[in-house]
Amino acid sequence: MLIVMKPGATEGQITEVLDKIKGLGLQGHPLPGQERTAIGITGNQGPVPKEPFDSLTGVAQTISVSQPYKLVSREMQGESTRVRVGDQEVGGGLFHVMAGPCSVESREQIFRAADAVAQAGATFLRGGAFKPRTSPYAFQGLKEEGLRYLAEARERTGLQVVTEVKDTETLELVAHYADVLQVGARNMQNYSLLEAIGKIDRPVLLKRGMSATVKEVLMAAEYIFSNGNQRVILCERGIRTYETATRNTFDLGGMAVLRSMTHLPVIADPSHGIGIRRFVPSMARAAAAVGCDGLIVEVHPEPEVALSDGQQSLTPEQFEQMMDELKAILPIVHQTLA
Amino acid sequence: MLIVMKPGATEGQITEVLDKIKGLGLQGHPLPGQERTAIGITGNQGPVPKEPFDSLTGVAQTISVSQPYKLVSREMQGESTRVRVGDQEVGGGLFHVMAGPCSVESREQIFRAADAVAQAGATFLRGGAFKPRTSPYAFQGLKEEGLRYLAEARERTGLQVVTEVKDTETLELVAHYADVLQVGARNMQNYSLLEAIGKIDRPVLLKRGMSATVKEVLMAAEYIFSNGNQRVILCERGIRTYETATRNTFDLGGMAVLRSMTHLPVIADPSHGIGIRRFVPSMARAAAAVGCDGLIVEVHPEPEVALSDGQQSLTPEQFEQMMDELKAILPIVHQTLA
Amino acid sequence: MLIVMKPGATEGQITEVLDKIKGLGLQGHPLPGQERTAIGITGNQGPVPKEPFDSLTGVAQTISVSQPYKLVSREMQGESTRVRVGDQEVGGGLFHVMAGPCSVESREQIFRAADAVAQAGATFLRGGAFKPRTSPYAFQGLKEEGLRYLAEARERTGLQVVTEVKDTETLELVAHYADVLQVGARNMQNYSLLEAIGKIDRPVLLKRGMSATVKEVLMAAEYIFSNGNQRVILCERGIRTYETATRNTFDLGGMAVLRSMTHLPVIADPSHGIGIRRFVPSMARAAAAVGCDGLIVEVHPEPEVALSDGQQSLTPEQFEQMMDELKAILPIVHQTLA
Amino acid sequence: MLIVMKPGATEGQITEVLDKIKGLGLQGHPLPGQERTAIGITGNQGPVPKEPFDSLTGVAQTISVSQPYKLVSREMQGESTRVRVGDQEVGGGLFHVMAGPCSVESREQIFRAADAVAQAGATFLRGGAFKPRTSPYAFQGLKEEGLRYLAEARERTGLQVVTEVKDTETLELVAHYADVLQVGARNMQNYSLLEAIGKIDRPVLLKRGMSATVKEVLMAAEYIFSNGNQRVILCERGIRTYETATRNTFDLGGMAVLRSMTHLPVIADPSHGIGIRRFVPSMARAAAAVGCDGLIVEVHPEPEVALSDGQQSLTPEQFEQMMDELKAILPIVHQTLA
Repeated sequence: MLIVMKPGATEGQITEVLDKIKGLGLQGHPLPGQERTAIGITGNQGPVPKEPFDSLTGVAQTISVSQPYKLVSREMQGESTRVRVGDQEVGGGLFHVMAGPCSVESREQIFRAADAVAQAGATFLRGGAFKPRTSPYAFQGLKEEGLRYLAEARERTGLQVVTEVKDTETLELVAHYADVLQVGARNMQNYSLLEAIGKIDRPVLLKRGMSATVKEVLMAAEYIFSNGNQRVILCERGIRTYETATRNTFDLGGMAVLRSMTHLPVIADPSHGIGIRRFVPSMARAAAAVGCDGLIVEVHPEPEVALSDGQQSLTPEQFEQMMDELKAILPIVHQTLA
Repeated sequence: MLIVMKPGATEGQITEVLDKIKGLGLQGHPLPGQERTAIGITGNQGPVPKEPFDSLTGVAQTISVSQPYKLVSREMQGESTRVRVGDQEVGGGLFHVMAGPCSVESREQIFRAADAVAQAGATFLRGGAFKPRTSPYAFQGLKEEGLRYLAEARERTGLQVVTEVKDTETLELVAHYADVLQVGARNMQNYSLLEAIGKIDRPVLLKRGMSATVKEVLMAAEYIFSNGNQRVILCERGIRTYETATRNTFDLGGMAVLRSMTHLPVIADPSHGIGIRRFVPSMARAAAAVGCDGLIVEVHPEPEVALSDGQQSLTPEQFEQMMDELKAILPIVHQTLA
Repeated sequence: MLIVMKPGATEGQITEVLDKIKGLGLQGHPLPGQERTAIGITGNQGPVPKEPFDSLTGVAQTISVSQPYKLVSREMQGESTRVRVGDQEVGGGLFHVMAGPCSVESREQIFRAADAVAQAGATFLRGGAFKPRTSPYAFQGLKEEGLRYLAEARERTGLQVVTEVKDTETLELVAHYADVLQVGARNMQNYSLLEAIGKIDRPVLLKRGMSATVKEVLMAAEYIFSNGNQRVILCERGIRTYETATRNTFDLGGMAVLRSMTHLPVIADPSHGIGIRRFVPSMARAAAAVGCDGLIVEVHPEPEVALSDGQQSLTPEQFEQMMDELKAILPIVHQTLA
Repeated sequence: MLIVMKPGATEGQITEVLDKIKGLGLQGHPLPGQERTAIGITGNQGPVPKEPFDSLTGVAQTISVSQPYKLVSREMQGESTRVRVGDQEVGGGLFHVMAGPCSVESREQIFRAADAVAQAGATFLRGGAFKPRTSPYAFQGLKEEGLRYLAEARERTGLQVVTEVKDTETLELVAHYADVLQVGARNMQNYSLLEAIGKIDRPVLLKRGMSATVKEVLMAAEYIFSNGNQRVILCERGIRTYETATRNTFDLGGMAVLRSMTHLPVIADPSHGIGIRRFVPSMARAAAAVGCDGLIVEVHPEPEVALSDGQQSLTPEQFEQMMDELKAILPIVHQTLA
């Protein structure tokens, strides 16, 4: 259930509601909005009685929320959330491009990549230091050394750093270096990790699982959100289907529906979405034209020698051209390139 | 195998090659290009010997074609085909919008729809007269009466008419009225129908089957093409996946790959691609931004009373706004709205 | 809606109900059972009024049927149908094995196959004469010559012949030779073909489409059934999924659900279900253990030289062993090998 | 690469090989067989040179292994592994049934379930104490209290306990109580968890991910195996497809292929495979008929009041009947009920 406070409700009135919720053995989650505060209630099995709240003076309205996800839904908050990352904001009309190599391979490589994407207009640098790989014998990343290089690249360029965290053991370490914690597709339903991230004060980029439904994406976000971390960005990155002509099936229809169901920003990953370099820019254009809140794109100074995902990484030149195309498309969907 | 003739090869030299092919018990298919003619060879089990052709005077080159589709492939013909429909051409930079209701329901309905889409910039009118329906008890279309209304709407507006043909029995009848014969998703692998259409002099719109791979789409097109009908337009319309938040999963990645593999025009059907009215324009924008050769969109004067597919049909107003958005996107992908 | 007549209702009382249905502009379909007749009503949009029927003397009960398939559903007829084919009956506890090569390749080949499968206990001979192939350049079957060989093999062995019909043009021809008309997966939603077959007095084997749901299988069967042909056998043959380790994903769970929803017999095709010879017997055992009404299995005297599907065809020796295993399993699921 | 030692090779000769491997900067994994020892080599990027090993006296043969999974493959070890669990062995012809409720709900509930399944012939008790749930608001299990009840039930019945471990934080705790650590479908690619489990001396039941391919299952097993834990049992539990008539699509074809590719035991979970109580026994029979090494089945004393998965849990009576059917099927596939 959702309790909407009157505009101008006092702290005391909000506390009164929270106490009442607690008295029922449930949890209250205040969501301050521009005009007024809403309070989500979770922890209930079955419907929550409305009567105890109707009589409280600061309460404007009580609303039943029917979905298993609540706090992240548009029913809970109609206006789009802007997620703050350092001095940037993502969402609500501010379109960001995150770019960089699949893996951090060396200081020189990440510097070259960072310089190139910064110059072309990216605001975030991506790069994996801890890499979950399907085979135990594949390159697993430079680990902390990679994180340090990312931090140095941030110093150098001013880009925000987004990098994957793959377990709770390394969460603190990754959070020490990263501006945004990426949860990869394979970990979208790693609930222990989601809960741990939910208790940290660091923005999160949550990627859709390989065969997750739109509803399951929202429930994974709800795990983070309900644990207290409200700075969650979602990401469409393609799903697994019978078609093998592309690495994944980039589900832009699902992304459009997802974005209508949640107030959180939703970005797209065209690199994993199609998995073939020459088609990545076309997928980037398409995602922007649907109306998403940003992109995360693999760019490598020399894709042909990349240790991972070289086949889907853009060259700096291709990336620059892609940015030019985006600049032409964004005004059509009322987005501003940050 | 593919035999590329020298520029300026004579009719006689081409005939010499065709005779040689025939002598080997195989079929030759001349494909005249702007600069020179290529001749595809089909009918072989296993490789075709190159020697008999190398000695012929008009032959520039013999090329092995490895795929099971040949005539429709870019290996066969590098430059994009423009398919002629009446006084229009589709493909090769000329972008067309086909629009209208799912089903023809009455003269008044199809006239209202035709007037609206023509005014907003469509060049083709769509509308089903023979409807394949999953349930035998659902509305099956107005049949010939519907075809007549479509023809009248063409007279009235100048739009080309595209309508579905669902079997060989009604092929002649539909071809009598229609400018383009649509083969629906369920019939993409109805080979008897494809062969019959291959022998007719009428352009074809071939929709991707519900779970067809990109390669299977090309092989279905090859059925039509190898029977003599070279005016084939392909259409992405979404595939069946595990995701139920949308009617189908609109596979724009697959479309991009398909378009790179064939010289035939490829258009997109955002209405079936997502199946939810409010998201159709966003899918239309995305498809255009990928770089396709046109769109086919369901528009109904009163979607809420439509006999079929009302939930995914645009109102004329929504369609008009969609056209405006397309006009802004097309120049970015070097397409001209026809 | 379904009208259940009293036990012992007269022809006249049944006619009275049918007339009343006709008077409402709807169609009535009598389904005689062992004890009493039920009459299905189709053609309605929305609910049918019950009152006109309640007052008729022969009527025991009127039942609303909620599904889009009606005549083939268990709601309509609780007891399992036995489909008569020549002197055989399929279903209702009588388990049949249909076996033979993918394609009829020569008189000698089909004779060898027929002899082998007959001796091992099959009651039906399968073999394609008209072959729908993904590529237009693949072997399309011996056509009428193949049908003649099948008929000769029937004379020789007493096996019933099941063979595919791929279009309405050849329907009469195939029906002239075949005991059972097979509708292939690609044609499961070829409604014109289903309707034509529905008007013929010949049993039908309807295979599940490559990405058809269980409900869609029932609706395809309903097309045949509602046109008058009530001798329909359904067949699970695997569906298309992301997994490529097998040719298709054999959906035995779907088959179990399907069989619970319809009174028609349901058989299984383990050859297409997995597509790899060495695993076909294990899939045959599994299907029998679920509790289906029969199997259709590819057997070739020399699989390694087969013109089609050699990789999934059993040798006669493997088939014989498979039959022995089936004989051990069938009693456990209360089936009798016919 | 795989190095096969001569029969009767000494410890010293094996050590010599391992030292040589180490000297190349790689890891050697001895796999003692009944007749001779094989040594797998991992850690290489690209091919390993054969020459250094050919000259060593104890070496019979060096074999290139082409797949990304090595240690778990049949190429590495032809004969089936029997995994020891307490005084039991799983695999290699010894068929085990693991049964119990989805979640441990109370001492009384788990005792009733344990008594019932033990009496009907199960050898393992299943029951979740830490439950990963799609919604953060769903019942998450009794945690350590649940583990204690499982241990008490083991005391009472002699059943081995299999229960899910969902993160590294609780791994030690779960391993303290459990005989077999279950890795759930959502965690199949949680590599940090797999690695941690690989370093523990406790058998593992690894469930196939919701959209994992057969090859990915093997690579997940390779993560555990290559870290030192060789007691791994795999489990087919259904995959996600477009079909919604069943909870998952039970992929018995994939299971058959998986079992042919690995020497590890493979069991099946018919409860999750179909997700509908009345069809669970038919899926259990089918899996056994394919030829797997055991089953894991949900049984609840009162399914209608279960806190999770009640719709797919068998009653004790249904379970007993299922066991009777299995006893009839197992001899056909040369399995012995343990």
